[in-house]
Amino acid sequence: MTPSTGDRLLSVVRDGVRIHDLGRRLFVGMPQSPNHPAYWHTLPRRHGDRVRADGGSAANDMVVMGTHVGTHIDALAHVSQDGLLHGGADAAAAGAGGVYPEHGVHTIAPMVRRGVLLDIPAVLGETCPPGHEITPADLEAAQKRQGTPVGAGDVVLIRSGWGRHFENPDHRVYRGEESGVPGVGEAGARWLAERRAHAAGADTIAFERLAPGAGHSRLPAHRVLLVESGIYIIETLALDELAAAGVHEFTFVLAPLPLFGATGSPVRPLAVVSDTLVPDTVVSCRGGAGIGGTDG
Amino acid sequence: MTPSTGDRLLSVVRDGVRIHDLGRRLFVGMPQSPNHPAYWHTLPRRHGDRVRADGGSAANDMVVMGTHVGTHIDALAHVSQDGLLHGGADAAAAGAGGVYPEHGVHTIAPMVRRGVLLDIPAVLGETCPPGHEITPADLEAAQKRQGTPVGAGDVVLIRSGWGRHFENPDHRVYRGEESGVPGVGEAGARWLAERRAHAAGADTIAFERLAPGAGHSRLPAHRVLLVESGIYIIETLALDELAAAGVHEFTFVLAPLPLFGATGSPVRPLAVVSDTLVPDTVVSCRGGAGIGGTDG
Amino acid sequence: MTPSTGDRLLSVVRDGVRIHDLGRRLFVGMPQSPNHPAYWHTLPRRHGDRVRADGGSAANDMVVMGTHVGTHIDALAHVSQDGLLHGGADAAAAGAGGVYPEHGVHTIAPMVRRGVLLDIPAVLGETCPPGHEITPADLEAAQKRQGTPVGAGDVVLIRSGWGRHFENPDHRVYRGEESGVPGVGEAGARWLAERRAHAAGADTIAFERLAPGAGHSRLPAHRVLLVESGIYIIETLALDELAAAGVHEFTFVLAPLPLFGATGSPVRPLAVVSDTLVPDTVVSCRGGAGIGGTDG
Amino acid sequence: MTPSTGDRLLSVVRDGVRIHDLGRRLFVGMPQSPNHPAYWHTLPRRHGDRVRADGGSAANDMVVMGTHVGTHIDALAHVSQDGLLHGGADAAAAGAGGVYPEHGVHTIAPMVRRGVLLDIPAVLGETCPPGHEITPADLEAAQKRQGTPVGAGDVVLIRSGWGRHFENPDHRVYRGEESGVPGVGEAGARWLAERRAHAAGADTIAFERLAPGAGHSRLPAHRVLLVESGIYIIETLALDELAAAGVHEFTFVLAPLPLFGATGSPVRPLAVVSDTLVPDTVVSCRGGAGIGGTDG
Repeated sequence: MTPSTGDRLLSVVRDGVRIHDLGRRLFVGMPQSPNHPAYWHTLPRRHGDRVRADGGSAANDMVVMGTHVGTHIDALAHVSQDGLLHGGADAAAAGAGGVYPEHGVHTIAPMVRRGVLLDIPAVLGETCPPGHEITPADLEAAQKRQGTPVGAGDVVLIRSGWGRHFENPDHRVYRGEESGVPGVGEAGARWLAERRAHAAGADTIAFERLAPGAGHSRLPAHRVLLVESGIYIIETLALDELAAAGVHEFTFVLAPLPLFGATGSPVRPLAVVSDTLVPDTVVSCRGGAGIGGTDG
Repeated sequence: MTPSTGDRLLSVVRDGVRIHDLGRRLFVGMPQSPNHPAYWHTLPRRHGDRVRADGGSAANDMVVMGTHVGTHIDALAHVSQDGLLHGGADAAAAGAGGVYPEHGVHTIAPMVRRGVLLDIPAVLGETCPPGHEITPADLEAAQKRQGTPVGAGDVVLIRSGWGRHFENPDHRVYRGEESGVPGVGEAGARWLAERRAHAAGADTIAFERLAPGAGHSRLPAHRVLLVESGIYIIETLALDELAAAGVHEFTFVLAPLPLFGATGSPVRPLAVVSDTLVPDTVVSCRGGAGIGGTDG
Repeated sequence: MTPSTGDRLLSVVRDGVRIHDLGRRLFVGMPQSPNHPAYWHTLPRRHGDRVRADGGSAANDMVVMGTHVGTHIDALAHVSQDGLLHGGADAAAAGAGGVYPEHGVHTIAPMVRRGVLLDIPAVLGETCPPGHEITPADLEAAQKRQGTPVGAGDVVLIRSGWGRHFENPDHRVYRGEESGVPGVGEAGARWLAERRAHAAGADTIAFERLAPGAGHSRLPAHRVLLVESGIYIIETLALDELAAAGVHEFTFVLAPLPLFGATGSPVRPLAVVSDTLVPDTVVSCRGGAGIGGTDG
Repeated sequence: MTPSTGDRLLSVVRDGVRIHDLGRRLFVGMPQSPNHPAYWHTLPRRHGDRVRADGGSAANDMVVMGTHVGTHIDALAHVSQDGLLHGGADAAAAGAGGVYPEHGVHTIAPMVRRGVLLDIPAVLGETCPPGHEITPADLEAAQKRQGTPVGAGDVVLIRSGWGRHFENPDHRVYRGEESGVPGVGEAGARWLAERRAHAAGADTIAFERLAPGAGHSRLPAHRVLLVESGIYIIETLALDELAAAGVHEFTFVLAPLPLFGATGSPVRPLAVVSDTLVPDTVVSCRGGAGIGGTDG
């Protein structure tokens, strides 16, 4: 019934794509930074609370959260240095009124662009140790090993392996305040900026390397990327399954919620690749949440 | 620097795509149904509140909202009929514990599939009047006029023209409780179900036709789609610019936030088409929020 | 079994007191100012959601609200004039960090003091018309008629009769933005300040007179009381039953929630009087919510 | 100026009362049970965000919280046993609709009644050790030592000394999940019920004894008091300063927020005693938050 399409993109999609879901499920009690309001979900109305005369009933939700919870993106409004935001705007004045009209997350255009996964454990031969700084040499080695050099406008996802701690019921492990957390430092951030990445992500809460016991006292990669370079940061990504599938280059899709004036947004990014073995079938790699239909 | 890609999808993307942003901006005071907790955003921390020793500062957010606010998707958990959810599950039992583990919005797989816009005003010769029921004949006429028949697995977006009221400061106009709101009724919903649509959307809050003064006393399209057919519903879409661009067939991209056990999620859907006139450029049609970069 | 007490206050209490409840019930959908986040209550956990092995179960709540909702008190942090708070503090600097440590509602000492109800309708012979300014002459006439002159340190509650609109399902009636709302103006506020009242309250949302259609464009009584005089303001009081009982002088009891750094708090103020006809019985005048026990 | 009063209660109040503030300050990051949504406060609007033409400006708040946070009271709706609430109501049916109309915190009448502090450390010679069960013998010894036998209708506050941990930045200490927490067990609860107490409170989160490492797996005192006896429970009280002042009998004042249908409410209870040494002066014992004025 459905005709062939004249659109090249849709034609390729209909030949079959595989979707890798890079977003963590949001649930009450998940690990997150204590600097941000905790994610909470509740049902004000459940089925049966109010049944209409025709037998219909609706359930609904209330959600409370910071925006830097779950898998999320940092807008340029999130970080300032010496009182200035990216581009030199006065950070205090930019937020007068309780919103950032010029630098908020609603200003981030939806992304459909090349994404590159840099799989650092594949280079190191082990998951990055706590507090390990991922160096430019590590990044170079990863892109060389994979044959996927980073280019201007790309979204670069850096896998440290730390994501394996996300489901640890002791949230201090994933947050890693005491142990330290692996990630890029100032040098790695500069490497990304020099390549003119569009956005950069990681499988940790803070994106960047945290020294053991140091907490968030210094965040040089945020400064280099957000403030100096205007490069967005994506945190708490689920990257292990993408790495296990051996997918290092893909179409990266991300549409932040356009929360007017906010400093960030929870997101559900996708890595999409052609897969003619599963024609017109959407398949994701993240368990129950991501199994698509086969309605072709 | 960036090499040619071996992935067909990415290759087409890099040749140039145009992104149409179908999501409404979320802001305090926007129109929404009073049945759901109002969207509210505030900044617990602004720049300057706490400045680190190195001159860095972070701002952050708190968001409170229902999930059926802004542009949003209804999960199967949202509506029951005679005590049952889609598939026959007991609706009360399914939500025991305050979450819907089997029917919640986290079970909706990310969508990268064919989307069809059915532009009803283009058929009627005017925007749909308040309370107008969009009939199967209207839907047939639209797909015929456009040359875009709906197929199994497609996402069908039905434009009534009502979205022009979204920014009216008197929210009662867009909600239309007194005037009525145009949309499909039971017959139109069956038409969609017979074609095995994957999801259906509209540019109104309630998706379906509301008779003048009747409010939400009857919601037959929700019953037919969500309960009887397992077809997701997307509401409060921004469709006017897509229609103005004459785009009736596209790759529809949607990744609901995986809010565990929730009955819905705010979303930012995209309609993406190839556009070799703007090689490797991401362009969206929704004003400031959607202007992409040109980093080729 | 219980011995006589050596404490004079307790001895009088045990001889019998009558409690008049001056606080409005808080419920989802109640009228409030749209400037403040709406009150919302939901049950994250209901009985049966999780039953312990011993058969016990707990239900709990989530509440979201502004603090100027329901019956509430304004802290000195709430209002500034020309950039200054009461006492001359710089208003912007006082709230740096997202809290008002020196002027927040946590700094309001609990009140157990003389309260005076000034019943203006009893003087006017009718409930105050919309937009009526309650003048110093009205206040003088009321205290004279009642034989209850206002003294230094008193809490003065001014009844306009507007509280009868609180339960009107059309919230615009009680808010009165179009009709105007009765209350004191600048002159009435000065009258209160000259008498060195400790706090002043009314049965309206805004406390002071709102001219028809003028909204909150000018709030001179807030300036005189909060900024110039350090006198707290209590709004949305339930005063009709107190007036009907003919109680014009009483022990006023108020304990704001010590919300650190907040600009206000919902409260439940009490007017307590001796009543030896009901020995050791606590009786309140606000219907179901206030019926006390008789356990003497 | 102010005349003598004809009301006995007010007359005694004007002779001088001392107010002891028993409520903990609520602040972001305070210790609370992880079963309840965390208290969060933020300023949507700060001074300067919107300045009216006349130079006036208002700041306001958003508060999100569970109701069993800070010093709070449990309504009868909070706990069920074998599917039943106090009085035998079906617990699931009682909350259909998302509120408890018959058992919610709005049904708790404001309290102005005899209060008794039972100072257990004064009997034991030391603060109660972690996991110590306060026995009927302990309670008897305390009331005997103090000369303040508990009578019907009294509010009984049981001090364990555990409140000293409230301000420990490691919240696990005050919560005491690993160490255990002192409090009454089933026997102590029965002792209170036999005396027909109106309400019972403690300086811990859970009120009752928690065995080391046992968490909230069994809560027999909640069952005996709330379900079997209809006796309210007040938790997280600040009792150390009351004990230090040697006040064991007082007028207890408590007015829970009338949150319709909720299972509890944060509260700020007061213990008030006559004090002719400070005529007409309100003095509280909780530091800056409780210093009253002297305007007599």
